[in-house]
Amino acid sequence: MGKNIVQKIFEAHKISGEIKEGSLVGLKVDQVYTQDATGTMAWLEFEAIGIDRVKVPLAVSYVDHNMLQSNFMNADDHLFLQTAAQRFGAYFSKPGNGICHQVHLERFALPGKIALGTDSHTPTGGGMGMIAIGVGGLEAATVMAGAAFEINMPKVVRINLRGRLQRPWVTAMDVILTLLKMLTVKGGVGKIFEYGGDGVKDLNVTERATITNMGAELGATTSIFPSDEKTLAYLKAQGREKDWVEIKADDDAEYAEIIELNLSAIEPMIAQPHSPDNVVTIREISGKKVNQVCIGSCTNSSYQAMKTVASILRGNTVAEWVNLLINPGSKQVYEMLSREGLIADMISAGARILEASCGPCIGMGGAPGSGHVSIRSYNRNFHGRSGTKDAYVYLASPIACAVMAIKGEIIDPRDVGIRIDETREPDKFLINDNLIIPPKPNTKDIKIIKGPNIKEVPVKEPLKKNIDAEVLLKLGNNITTDDIMPAGSKVLPFRSNIPAISEFVFENIDRTFSKRAMEAKESGGGIIIGGENYGQGSSREHAAIAPMYLGLQAVIAKSFARIHRANLINFGVLPLLFKSESDYDKIEQGHRLLIRDVIISIKGEQNFKVDNITKGYTFEVISNLNDREKELILKGGLLPYVRR
Amino acid sequence: MGKNIVQKIFEAHKISGEIKEGSLVGLKVDQVYTQDATGTMAWLEFEAIGIDRVKVPLAVSYVDHNMLQSNFMNADDHLFLQTAAQRFGAYFSKPGNGICHQVHLERFALPGKIALGTDSHTPTGGGMGMIAIGVGGLEAATVMAGAAFEINMPKVVRINLRGRLQRPWVTAMDVILTLLKMLTVKGGVGKIFEYGGDGVKDLNVTERATITNMGAELGATTSIFPSDEKTLAYLKAQGREKDWVEIKADDDAEYAEIIELNLSAIEPMIAQPHSPDNVVTIREISGKKVNQVCIGSCTNSSYQAMKTVASILRGNTVAEWVNLLINPGSKQVYEMLSREGLIADMISAGARILEASCGPCIGMGGAPGSGHVSIRSYNRNFHGRSGTKDAYVYLASPIACAVMAIKGEIIDPRDVGIRIDETREPDKFLINDNLIIPPKPNTKDIKIIKGPNIKEVPVKEPLKKNIDAEVLLKLGNNITTDDIMPAGSKVLPFRSNIPAISEFVFENIDRTFSKRAMEAKESGGGIIIGGENYGQGSSREHAAIAPMYLGLQAVIAKSFARIHRANLINFGVLPLLFKSESDYDKIEQGHRLLIRDVIISIKGEQNFKVDNITKGYTFEVISNLNDREKELILKGGLLPYVRR
Repeated sequence: MGKNIVQKIFEAHKISGEIKEGSLVGLKVDQVYTQDATGTMAWLEFEAIGIDRVKVPLAVSYVDHNMLQSNFMNADDHLFLQTAAQRFGAYFSKPGNGICHQVHLERFALPGKIALGTDSHTPTGGGMGMIAIGVGGLEAATVMAGAAFEINMPKVVRINLRGRLQRPWVTAMDVILTLLKMLTVKGGVGKIFEYGGDGVKDLNVTERATITNMGAELGATTSIFPSDEKTLAYLKAQGREKDWVEIKADDDAEYAEIIELNLSAIEPMIAQPHSPDNVVTIREISGKKVNQVCIGSCTNSSYQAMKTVASILRGNTVAEWVNLLINPGSKQVYEMLSREGLIADMISAGARILEASCGPCIGMGGAPGSGHVSIRSYNRNFHGRSGTKDAYVYLASPIACAVMAIKGEIIDPRDVGIRIDETREPDKFLINDNLIIPPKPNTKDIKIIKGPNIKEVPVKEPLKKNIDAEVLLKLGNNITTDDIMPAGSKVLPFRSNIPAISEFVFENIDRTFSKRAMEAKESGGGIIIGGENYGQGSSREHAAIAPMYLGLQAVIAKSFARIHRANLINFGVLPLLFKSESDYDKIEQGHRLLIRDVIISIKGEQNFKVDNITKGYTFEVISNLNDREKELILKGGLLPYVRR
Repeated sequence: MGKNIVQKIFEAHKISGEIKEGSLVGLKVDQVYTQDATGTMAWLEFEAIGIDRVKVPLAVSYVDHNMLQSNFMNADDHLFLQTAAQRFGAYFSKPGNGICHQVHLERFALPGKIALGTDSHTPTGGGMGMIAIGVGGLEAATVMAGAAFEINMPKVVRINLRGRLQRPWVTAMDVILTLLKMLTVKGGVGKIFEYGGDGVKDLNVTERATITNMGAELGATTSIFPSDEKTLAYLKAQGREKDWVEIKADDDAEYAEIIELNLSAIEPMIAQPHSPDNVVTIREISGKKVNQVCIGSCTNSSYQAMKTVASILRGNTVAEWVNLLINPGSKQVYEMLSREGLIADMISAGARILEASCGPCIGMGGAPGSGHVSIRSYNRNFHGRSGTKDAYVYLASPIACAVMAIKGEIIDPRDVGIRIDETREPDKFLINDNLIIPPKPNTKDIKIIKGPNIKEVPVKEPLKKNIDAEVLLKLGNNITTDDIMPAGSKVLPFRSNIPAISEFVFENIDRTFSKRAMEAKESGGGIIIGGENYGQGSSREHAAIAPMYLGLQAVIAKSFARIHRANLINFGVLPLLFKSESDYDKIEQGHRLLIRDVIISIKGEQNFKVDNITKGYTFEVISNLNDREKELILKGGLLPYVRR
């Protein structure tokens, strides 16, 4: 029987287990990278593990989130990351060098290899034919410390691309928006999407990366494209042709599922507020007035995309009532655009150029006004993520964004009569890695510098016999990690300080949560009730650590998003599923629940009896922990587990 | 008798009074401009006055301070300013168009005219041969509403420039730093500096503007250069040669004082923490490690300065441990630098390019890390203004900054062996005003849009017979408006909301101030005791309005900075001077003071008896209000006065 791409790469990296859907498999990891918002915690965790030097072939510490520097905290974090990278043998990508996923794709991603990143958009590397998976910081730290990466083998779903995009108006962004419309934000849970079919050759590496990047919004573990002549061309243009290997599925490879997608039929699409799967064609909602347009982010920051945007803006002016913000994805792209006069074209049209960083995508600046409409070439439009609670954020291709900035309204780019140049990636990128500081030998004496906002990683006490705790909050479906642990310019600077950041847990849903949780902590702690796909979105482990710090013992939900579930386990919080979903309806905030014989149940059938003490009835929940996860939960999480 | 430049311009604009040192003179104003941090209040005040359309020949509303957009507030302010400008007949300079002083110099400043700006660095226009004076927002609003600008005629001090700068290493920045060393931050109080002598011809308009800009740090009312062939050349390059007129002092003009300055003897200088007059030669302190370098701001953002910086950075890389931030001063400069590959040179060297805005200079982003050393080509290094309380901020020329970014330490640029191109302003600037929205006719129906953070201007009740109040705080010399009303990214967004911003008054000096003041407000209000030069620095009227909102009745000080004193009066707070400075020593925070017969004293000799009720003794204070100021204080300030 032939093999698909995922099977081939997994087999080449297998240390333990079986490459079989649902089985636990241990993998050797080639690359680990962090960004600053998750990375300070990851590197504090690595330090806490007590290993002398990273044990993976490549580790990179990026800075791209916390770059506003509203006070001392951001700069202190940067210096901590720089000195920690130097001390532990990692590359350090200085602030200004760009967004981790874009830079990693350009300079480090390798076809056929496995990379972990402490960011949910790590699958960007799938555009290179790499298995690239987003993980929590602690998972990354343990792998850097030498552990295998253990994962329940996801379903491999083939997406068969046929035909060709209607260029120049339809882009890779419209492909992934179309898939989000088809499959929804839950459509990829427990799955890896492997792209194939003759349509693949219509897409170059950065276009593929847009699709795999935003595959995160499908809830997929990751997405991957073959490594072919397009991959070679990109690597060659990056001066890295020696890094190329061909990776393709066997003709008779098998898949859990096959989805057909005709590129030729795709139209310019737009995701409406407040979910990336709330997708319609742009023409369906044209005419709405636009206040702000943002172009860039790890999803759409390629040279090609930016050059196209410049060609649209050239000689035009943004509408009188529109603000256009552009953040190039990397220093490489930014420097090339500058060198070629394309940044000048953007400035000339009235664009405001932001740093090569995540910026407005993560609510670090660029927040829209009250009730304003913002169109963004970004990946997420969750409620409040822009920094403005009552803003209306839409997602569309960079081309559509540029056109709407000029016109000042939602409009299909085909309907405006603007001429655009069809652009492509260059044959030769400008290569200048002077903001990447490579690891040095003999670094044991290097002092890691920690500013006053950088605090130790808290650790949970080992699991008790029974959990007797209060329901702190009951939530609906598709709760995001942005809901649990908000980002944005107010909260992100506290990412190195769990006691401080914990005060913001669920702030946008219930401002009293943190206070109530701290009170409940004194008397057994808290439980959260979730709906389906609990914890979707960003990989931030702070959405697990901070609630744990506030005394959270368990989350009982209808289903969990993968990374968040792993983060809960890594920090000793029990993820439980309703045996009967109708029990969800009976529980309310404030109820007191007694989960009996927790340790025995985990070691046994993973069936738990729960007494609703307030209401006087009993219901059942289950856990589906694999053997490793059982051990972690019993020990209080991954950090105490690894430390032994 | 011959006339100096100041006398000539004042006479051409005189409506009332006499052009005689110390006399109150009423002037016709040609131009008024606002920036967003002071402008929201100014335009709310204009609206409150109730006039239909601005009555000065030119009004411009700029956006340059609040551009981080951490939440809805900044964007709401921008839209308010845009709709208010449209409604009331002002130009609106969109965010991204640049820093008000730089843009105003380029596109609007006129030799021989008088401009007011709601920012302390308005004297930048003096480089053009214009009288340009920083005022509070309410002063600007009343002048836009048709009132004359009334001012006590300052002393005119001639600064005689001789010789030529040691180019390329010594710049206009070193000239003003040298003057600050000579004269201190109090050296210009009550004065206008008029530059002359044969050294003037060594300086072009933007170099002159650097000097007049930072003349604000001398405490001067303003500074001015002649309008000569250099002025004509600059205007011609801006496509505005028709705006040129020659302005020069008569050969036999008289001055209150003449200061000689030999340009040839000036060396590269640096201001040490935490005052712009704490100046030494760079060589005196060379060797100190540098963490951050910032280049730009309204002081040093000319095309010429930035081009020189690019030539230094070209082919070099910033030191491993240094962050280099560059904020171009205007879209014109930014677009030209981009068009010519100079931004690419900066990016290539590792610079982080920020928006054309005030940025780190006003603590809006770019804060250094804890205890870090930051070298800046900016105008102020007051304690905490960078956003980091324990940072060490130094001020130096853009050339010195660029060299230090590469070397990573404090070093005289002459001592490093870096070759630099001597640059000059171009013969033709790139002119593209598409981010400046001109006023339109018939705008009565335009709706002014106010977000939820934009609140009405509070007004003080009319003065009472006696002031019976508590000493809320006793302060030393040279207290800045940054001390009184901090700026930075946390506080600036509340500039349109006095109740909210009032909570931050004196926050960096005494966190309990605002709470104590609100308590004291219930029982007669508060008094502040100040030393010399109370209220120096920024023109922000919030340093008067917010304390007034908190119940402040009077400030008793040894001396006042001009703009802040005017702002206190404009909001009905009595500025009083110790008759005997030894009385300063006897008063402590918490004392209760009774200022008797306030109204009678103001109308009479301006001598006041003050009972220190707590300590049981009486002392005397005086006010030196002119007739108009007396009326304002009696009415509760300028707004109730104008409204009648």
